[in-house]
Amino acid sequence: MPEDLRNRVDRQPTVAGLSEADLLARIFPRLRMEAGHTTSTLLGPGDDAAIVAAPDGKTVISIDTQVQDQDFRLLWPNGYRTTGFDVGWKAAAQNLSDINAMGAHATSMVVSLTLPVDTPVSWVENLADGLTAGIRTLGADRCSVAGGDLGRGTEISVTVAVLGTLDGGRPVLRSGARPGDVLALAGTAGHAAAGLALLEADVPVDTLTPAERVFVDLQCRPRPPLSAGPAARAAGATAMLDVSDGLLRDGQRMAAASNVAVVIDPDRLAHLSELLAPAAARLGADSTQWLLGGGEDHGLLATFPGDVQLPPGFTAIGSIHALGTDEGPGVLTAGRAADTGGWDHFAH
Amino acid sequence: MPEDLRNRVDRQPTVAGLSEADLLARIFPRLRMEAGHTTSTLLGPGDDAAIVAAPDGKTVISIDTQVQDQDFRLLWPNGYRTTGFDVGWKAAAQNLSDINAMGAHATSMVVSLTLPVDTPVSWVENLADGLTAGIRTLGADRCSVAGGDLGRGTEISVTVAVLGTLDGGRPVLRSGARPGDVLALAGTAGHAAAGLALLEADVPVDTLTPAERVFVDLQCRPRPPLSAGPAARAAGATAMLDVSDGLLRDGQRMAAASNVAVVIDPDRLAHLSELLAPAAARLGADSTQWLLGGGEDHGLLATFPGDVQLPPGFTAIGSIHALGTDEGPGVLTAGRAADTGGWDHFAH
Repeated sequence: MPEDLRNRVDRQPTVAGLSEADLLARIFPRLRMEAGHTTSTLLGPGDDAAIVAAPDGKTVISIDTQVQDQDFRLLWPNGYRTTGFDVGWKAAAQNLSDINAMGAHATSMVVSLTLPVDTPVSWVENLADGLTAGIRTLGADRCSVAGGDLGRGTEISVTVAVLGTLDGGRPVLRSGARPGDVLALAGTAGHAAAGLALLEADVPVDTLTPAERVFVDLQCRPRPPLSAGPAARAAGATAMLDVSDGLLRDGQRMAAASNVAVVIDPDRLAHLSELLAPAAARLGADSTQWLLGGGEDHGLLATFPGDVQLPPGFTAIGSIHALGTDEGPGVLTAGRAADTGGWDHFAH
Repeated sequence: MPEDLRNRVDRQPTVAGLSEADLLARIFPRLRMEAGHTTSTLLGPGDDAAIVAAPDGKTVISIDTQVQDQDFRLLWPNGYRTTGFDVGWKAAAQNLSDINAMGAHATSMVVSLTLPVDTPVSWVENLADGLTAGIRTLGADRCSVAGGDLGRGTEISVTVAVLGTLDGGRPVLRSGARPGDVLALAGTAGHAAAGLALLEADVPVDTLTPAERVFVDLQCRPRPPLSAGPAARAAGATAMLDVSDGLLRDGQRMAAASNVAVVIDPDRLAHLSELLAPAAARLGADSTQWLLGGGEDHGLLATFPGDVQLPPGFTAIGSIHALGTDEGPGVLTAGRAADTGGWDHFAH
């Protein structure tokens, strides 16, 4: 691969010139958190394994991989070049979001990088910077990178395993939604999809409006609302999940796990939809499709008992209903059963 | 890729015909442990994250990736075809070894699979079986697979993050070796390297002797001595690490971390060397090179105070010495400073 990269970075040093130890020595200093950043890492990089505090005797754990040309393109049709910084940030954000969706705080990450030998060293350094910046900027202030692994491959692949703590609380699962609950969203929806459409469109990157640039930035460097997860748990959320594949598809997952009907009221999403309208008009796209079908904003979809005041950051967007006779769990929007096909890694 | 696989498995269903949910439904039942297997998994697959017990308030964590054509070949020069079972087992074994090397017990794994769309479904099912068999057979009887992630790529890549517990004990680090300590090895050395040489040689797989087949099997399905790590910790080991890159190179790591000289006595490795001699003679190879330079057996290299009785499975193979003036940390064998170059992911 790095065809795209190679054209751009001729004469830049590549990882082929470095030993694994040399490359790690370039990366580790960039993963250090600033003074005052709380650390849960009891033993950091350099041994066979790291050690992370789990003060309440439980560790929340998730894993996620980003692969070049599947999860990101190095060079997009509109001319935007994905930076190592973007990839590092996105790897951090996606994984932090999974911990957030349990109502937990992230405590640590371990990172496994697979790199083609012609990957520029600077690209890898930028990736480390992006990981660190994502953790800091998104407010995962108890998290740092505790260790990792490096290896060769023919395509860039970044896997992060993230650990978290519930601080003695109970996790908020997908399966707890009950008839009568309010359905609420924290964060945005459809904005990363708009960004993806702009990246893939015949719209040169330097002609993007500031509003369009926000969508592209959100696709490349997602901003999951990390304070919302633990706040939802504290407020008594009955069910919650990360909206990574779109409101319809993730709503369907909640419906299936909880054996309920999830009803989304599109009028309640108007505040998000209005922002999408100009970009949709420019591309001749359907902003409702972005709003309901688009993933990767990494907002939180949660349910709360009807008498609970929604925590800051959440907006009511619908409600949970009991299933009728012969009715399967599903999502209804604008009074109709929704097609919840959405994104799938293999069958598309 | 799957060129090699494709020739073999024409007309077998591939993952392209399945949704991610369908494929997960094929995998999860194969990851279940038998009745009586202790589980540390408090919440298993199906939500945004898993939850694993960390009874002493600490989690040991490591991550490792295997990539096709880097860490294994689907079809070896000698005709051996790597099975999904092999890859699953090896992924389990390598990661369990990292936990073992801290003196800890594995509690859980999360697995991220990247698969080309033409990967046969049966290959992926075999991989799940290999993970489970590796965990069971190697005796990681408190460990199971708590969750995972699936995605597409152009090459097969398997990343495992493994969690472990020290049960309230202190980890055994690389940095604790002290002058006067005994250097000891648990498990084999050089056998996986012999297996690799046989796989890469012009020796048809069906002509291998039973002894040679043992080496090939050990390369494809390593057998780290999982009871030895916690036993070494309990016995008072001062330093320990997993021999994944060879005695010389990993000995060098211990020497550097502990700021000592690591002295290996090759005569003490004779019991391992003798087993290698016939295969070395057949290939015209140097069995000492395999013994000292070969990785992937995943034995344990540990140091113990001189007055400690070595725990079962460990054999004394040398000693730790203080550095002389102007002498850097390093490995000496047969009285000479050793070249500890060994395996490196990028610079070879």
